Amino acid sequence: MKFFSKLAVALLFVALVGMTISPSPANAQSALQKVMKDRGLTEKDMLAAAKTYTPTGGRDEYIVCSSGGQSGQIMFYGIPSMRILKYVAVFTPEPWQGYGFDDESKAVLAQGRINGKDITYGDTHHPAFSETDGNYDGKFIFINDKANPRIAVVDLHDFETKQIVVNPFFKSDHGGCFVTPNTEYIMEASQYAAPYTSDFVPLSEFNEKYRGGLTYWKFNKDIGRIEPDNSFTFEMPPYSQDLSDAGKGPSYGWGFNNSFCTERYVGGIEKGRPPYEAGCSSKDTDFLHVTNWLKAEELVKAGKVKKVNGAYLITMEQSIKEGLMYLIPEPKSPHGVDVTPDGLHMIVAGKLDSHAWVYSFEKIMKAIKDKNFESHDPYGIPIISLDVALERSVNVGLGPLHNQFDSVDGVLYTSIYVDSQITKWNYKTGKVLDTLPIHYNVGHLMTMEGDTQTPDGKYLVALNKLSIDRFNPVGPLHPQNHQLIDISGSQMELLYDMPVPLGEPHYAAAIKADKLQPAVRYKVGWDSRTDQKSPYRCRAGREKIVREDGVVHVYGTLIRSHITPETIEVYEGETVSIHLTNLERAQDETHGFAMYSQNVQLSVEPGKTVSTTFVADKAGVYPYYCTEFCSALHLEMQGYLLVMPKGYKPDDGPIEDGVKYTKADYEAQVATNVATQDVINQVVGFITSQNYQDFPPVVSLVEDATDQLGFAEESKGKAEAAAAKGDYQNAMLWANQWWQYQVKTADIGLRAKTYLEEHDSKTVKK
Amino acid sequence: MKFFSKLAVALLFVALVGMTISPSPANAQSALQKVMKDRGLTEKDMLAAAKTYTPTGGRDEYIVCSSGGQSGQIMFYGIPSMRILKYVAVFTPEPWQGYGFDDESKAVLAQGRINGKDITYGDTHHPAFSETDGNYDGKFIFINDKANPRIAVVDLHDFETKQIVVNPFFKSDHGGCFVTPNTEYIMEASQYAAPYTSDFVPLSEFNEKYRGGLTYWKFNKDIGRIEPDNSFTFEMPPYSQDLSDAGKGPSYGWGFNNSFCTERYVGGIEKGRPPYEAGCSSKDTDFLHVTNWLKAEELVKAGKVKKVNGAYLITMEQSIKEGLMYLIPEPKSPHGVDVTPDGLHMIVAGKLDSHAWVYSFEKIMKAIKDKNFESHDPYGIPIISLDVALERSVNVGLGPLHNQFDSVDGVLYTSIYVDSQITKWNYKTGKVLDTLPIHYNVGHLMTMEGDTQTPDGKYLVALNKLSIDRFNPVGPLHPQNHQLIDISGSQMELLYDMPVPLGEPHYAAAIKADKLQPAVRYKVGWDSRTDQKSPYRCRAGREKIVREDGVVHVYGTLIRSHITPETIEVYEGETVSIHLTNLERAQDETHGFAMYSQNVQLSVEPGKTVSTTFVADKAGVYPYYCTEFCSALHLEMQGYLLVMPKGYKPDDGPIEDGVKYTKADYEAQVATNVATQDVINQVVGFITSQNYQDFPPVVSLVEDATDQLGFAEESKGKAEAAAAKGDYQNAMLWANQWWQYQVKTADIGLRAKTYLEEHDSKTVKK
Repeated sequence: MKFFSKLAVALLFVALVGMTISPSPANAQSALQKVMKDRGLTEKDMLAAAKTYTPTGGRDEYIVCSSGGQSGQIMFYGIPSMRILKYVAVFTPEPWQGYGFDDESKAVLAQGRINGKDITYGDTHHPAFSETDGNYDGKFIFINDKANPRIAVVDLHDFETKQIVVNPFFKSDHGGCFVTPNTEYIMEASQYAAPYTSDFVPLSEFNEKYRGGLTYWKFNKDIGRIEPDNSFTFEMPPYSQDLSDAGKGPSYGWGFNNSFCTERYVGGIEKGRPPYEAGCSSKDTDFLHVTNWLKAEELVKAGKVKKVNGAYLITMEQSIKEGLMYLIPEPKSPHGVDVTPDGLHMIVAGKLDSHAWVYSFEKIMKAIKDKNFESHDPYGIPIISLDVALERSVNVGLGPLHNQFDSVDGVLYTSIYVDSQITKWNYKTGKVLDTLPIHYNVGHLMTMEGDTQTPDGKYLVALNKLSIDRFNPVGPLHPQNHQLIDISGSQMELLYDMPVPLGEPHYAAAIKADKLQPAVRYKVGWDSRTDQKSPYRCRAGREKIVREDGVVHVYGTLIRSHITPETIEVYEGETVSIHLTNLERAQDETHGFAMYSQNVQLSVEPGKTVSTTFVADKAGVYPYYCTEFCSALHLEMQGYLLVMPKGYKPDDGPIEDGVKYTKADYEAQVATNVATQDVINQVVGFITSQNYQDFPPVVSLVEDATDQLGFAEESKGKAEAAAAKGDYQNAMLWANQWWQYQVKTADIGLRAKTYLEEHDSKTVKK
Repeated sequence: MKFFSKLAVALLFVALVGMTISPSPANAQSALQKVMKDRGLTEKDMLAAAKTYTPTGGRDEYIVCSSGGQSGQIMFYGIPSMRILKYVAVFTPEPWQGYGFDDESKAVLAQGRINGKDITYGDTHHPAFSETDGNYDGKFIFINDKANPRIAVVDLHDFETKQIVVNPFFKSDHGGCFVTPNTEYIMEASQYAAPYTSDFVPLSEFNEKYRGGLTYWKFNKDIGRIEPDNSFTFEMPPYSQDLSDAGKGPSYGWGFNNSFCTERYVGGIEKGRPPYEAGCSSKDTDFLHVTNWLKAEELVKAGKVKKVNGAYLITMEQSIKEGLMYLIPEPKSPHGVDVTPDGLHMIVAGKLDSHAWVYSFEKIMKAIKDKNFESHDPYGIPIISLDVALERSVNVGLGPLHNQFDSVDGVLYTSIYVDSQITKWNYKTGKVLDTLPIHYNVGHLMTMEGDTQTPDGKYLVALNKLSIDRFNPVGPLHPQNHQLIDISGSQMELLYDMPVPLGEPHYAAAIKADKLQPAVRYKVGWDSRTDQKSPYRCRAGREKIVREDGVVHVYGTLIRSHITPETIEVYEGETVSIHLTNLERAQDETHGFAMYSQNVQLSVEPGKTVSTTFVADKAGVYPYYCTEFCSALHLEMQGYLLVMPKGYKPDDGPIEDGVKYTKADYEAQVATNVATQDVINQVVGFITSQNYQDFPPVVSLVEDATDQLGFAEESKGKAEAAAAKGDYQNAMLWANQWWQYQVKTADIGLRAKTYLEEHDSKTVKK
């Protein structure tokens, strides 16, 4: 054993304590020129690099929440670094997060069942940040599922999905989510017309019995949940309603949403007629829908709206009678309708037009007041004439799709799908200010807080559908391309191409990073899906296995580096419910829990309690282990579920250890531990000699290290007690456990030390 | 209608044809200084930015395949840009890719069932590229699932998962995947010992009946599939076998794998004893396992190995008798065992040691030849003494974990978990050359092609477990941190921090980008999972709905922008099987297919045929639509599944159109079309005046545009035929369809034009 000594470990620590980081070589400028030449970078590229490159530990100025399209998830990335920080599971089960695997998140997904069926994906389209006074407040994100008309609530306190609601009327939605200025309501518009019932209705009754609609979901900010009982839906004609936006400022109380296929054409390929695409785009205009949600709310509160399918439905008849809904012609096949920051105008872009159309809210209100309607649609809804409502239209390019606003009054940006460009223009003057080609076929676009009452400008992201030749190839299915554009100057400058590696985002929203202050841990024993203490929480030392109501409940805990219990014995056929509480307080100390062949994969962040319930339907041996690399001894964080045949009598006798230890082994281990403690003391000495309390991450590390040292002390006690009884087998094992906690302490201490060195801490005492 | 004219669209084209891109402002150097100051960037940061920033359209030099940990997926990203290009679904259903949603990929996942149960996730650990002559050949990636011991094959032709095999003996694996130098075999080692049967065996029989093992899966490169019938497994003692590597060059034919918990300790928390972590790390050494797979293969071929559980099992008795397996002490709780590029040495790093140990293959062979064993383990396996096998051990830091090689002979890099650093050293001289702190707690690391016979050096990525303070916070569950390090100089330089937004990667491998030449489309009617023509493929015009064997088979097609059929009528209770072929040839023109409430979400890349089968168990109306934003009329790419009550007689009469068209409407549309054609001709004129045939992406776009113009011609014919009969309703609709195809043509033409302009095409004719 001449090459090895535990003491060497300790000595190394000493060596490292004295180690310093070499400075980088000088002559950086010529080195830079060489790299630029080698990589073919221009000075313009270097400017873009300087505007986006974020060194280690740097922070982004804005955080984007982007839909994840058909992945059913949402994702968050930073601007200007364009680094994706997290995919958050919403409609699709995702095992890294344990989402759809633990009982708590299964209950969230179960809220989204349709006709009693689990839906295991979503087609997410338009995320919306919660707002206060027309500005993002950083509290919640809402996201819709177009395929199965649902809305989910994600809490930005912990970036977890808390609730899913199913639309009581629709069979698809696309025009969601959009919020009213104080998140009173979340708007969700249907897309493909369908009967409001779940019954079969033939297409020959399309005009009479198929319907569109717009739901205003009531949101309760205090509890962070949608209240279906206080929500209401506008019945709408069987047009394909599309995107929405809520009025603000002077237009507060009103909602606006687009539509296409107001032709009400039903595709005819099977009958030798043209497809939907032709029949749905034959008219020169579709209809902008204008709804008065504030007045509707009053009617609901006054008990004047009836419930259908268990939810408030404002029929077209009632809307017409009460003056709640109006139509205005708009450019054909529109996508975005975007209310200007001052709330005075609504801008609509039609994908088959080359103009953006600017409507005046004042003119619309005047027409309504004067009952100045050009006609009514086939369902009797008043139509305000274009001449009356329109302020101007501006030629912005072929296929305008969506608008986002600049911080400069009147200036906005429109994505141009067919021409593959961004057009910067002024809706107050009607002047086009700049255009920039993008790669390729941009759908939505996004400026910083660009749909609020106070947009920030600064950056723009083009959400491009096609990436074709932009990136290294990865097979027939390509990533999308989010292009970052600098809009701080008079001309737009392309900065960065970001491939989207999963899902096809449609819409995104960017919030000031400092508005997000998420937690790094939960209160101990927390059910993060109900936001309450879990009834299944467990404290250290209170772990137990109990049989209640025919279920084997395992109350367990997780901490570096062991799972308690390490053995679970049940009988074949029993239902097993394992509840695990992560006892860690340290940031980023998540533990996982996977079990062989049982579809069990949990993610248990510090403080959280999660559960998994399954039937142990086959006798056998089922290893389980921690799936997060949590410490040097992570692989040893393991255990066994033993499923015994019915009637089997478990042998409670001792299991023979594979190795026997002597007094000498024990003493050698203790010697190592003593030496290791000396090193820890040195590291502690360094940290406490510095102004470490000025660095919150270090304070947190010191707290964690103190915890671990406490555990070490406990094991030391057990080792010494066993040794006192002459039980050197257990004395040696406990002494080793004591050393394991020392190693964890050292690990944390070294991280703290590195942090202080890199952040130029100062010596405050010797 | 004074603001609008279809002709405006055409005129706009003309305007755009003449539009040029403004040059960027001069004085870039002072602008750069300002940005650096504003963002707090040092010259060193700018050098790192220059080394990583990749402008639009730029390519990466290396492509990384990283495990996705508990997400069950793998991901690909580029170096040096550190942009994630794609997550590829492997063990977990993923709707964007239709994986686990279409019948074809469900069949792949079904191969991975255990005890008849679907497993809907995996814990992926170690990806391995296929090799030829000890170097990556860019053909396949293999990845393991630790939780449910399985191996998957991903084909780099299309980046899709083709096969999953379940280990016939193990209950977990960690030490996979590693390949032999010509991908003859894929190595998969078990981790947590368990019985080889699926029966219950009490822990008191751990030493006698629990077993580890190492499977060599036979891979057939010609068909790209594992052959379970030609694979074999070494029975091993109930140690926790860990990572592996295959011998190469002089050590070809041998395999090496680590182990921990050779103490065979069974955790004792419930009985007041220390946990696994203490008992599994008490000895100073564990065992390196050395296996002779070439000789084992001979025995298998000679019919000398028996089958157990339907698969070849080389028992410990047979291994000992035939000289197939040896043990050598190694540092405690090791992780990586890495064979040097020349195949002469094996380097092992033990997480609870501070040394990397260098073993000599020649010395090991000599000991075997001389039968020079220090003893035998409790199962009779010969143990070669450390003194005999070891070349040297080198103090590299506390918690060394994994090694990767440089292009410079003898130089390698070791990840140091506890000290959170990378150590550069020379295994031939034993000298430490450099150290670099990383953030924080690095697990594996990776150099470019760093585990092949000819490593490239250049870059290193540290796969860090903790990211704590590195990024903007996104809740208690943190991303991982992959740090890119420049290793081209004598000192390591940190370049970039990349957050991993989904899953916890463990291992990764980087291949030269030009070795990957994936397809961008499939042969028409292709089943990408079986790599054969689909029996359900369908050509344009041959779409049909037929009832066969009690199933309603829908043979459909997808093309911009319609789904054929647009209406599907079935009866309640019928099983429906929808088969869709994407008729596109254009790169990146994927179509999706989602249906309300039926868990149907397909991804259909150009040429592919995919199927979905479900029971229409409830009468009702089920909209379906394309989920990929494929064209300006994408939202109109829709249809309805009508599930009729049993006995319902469908009404085949006409559906009344919502809008009636006149001769004037028709003629106006034709006028627009004629004007649009003029513009298309201008764009075509520009493209064909250039040397466009020198640009393959443009040639491909021109091909696509030609397709679309052909479709336009077809619709034009139908419009004219209807008009000739005085049927202006259909004439107008077909004329509009004709225009839709023109818009698609223009869209493609404009993309081609932009490409040519940005790539400085030359005029070759006027």
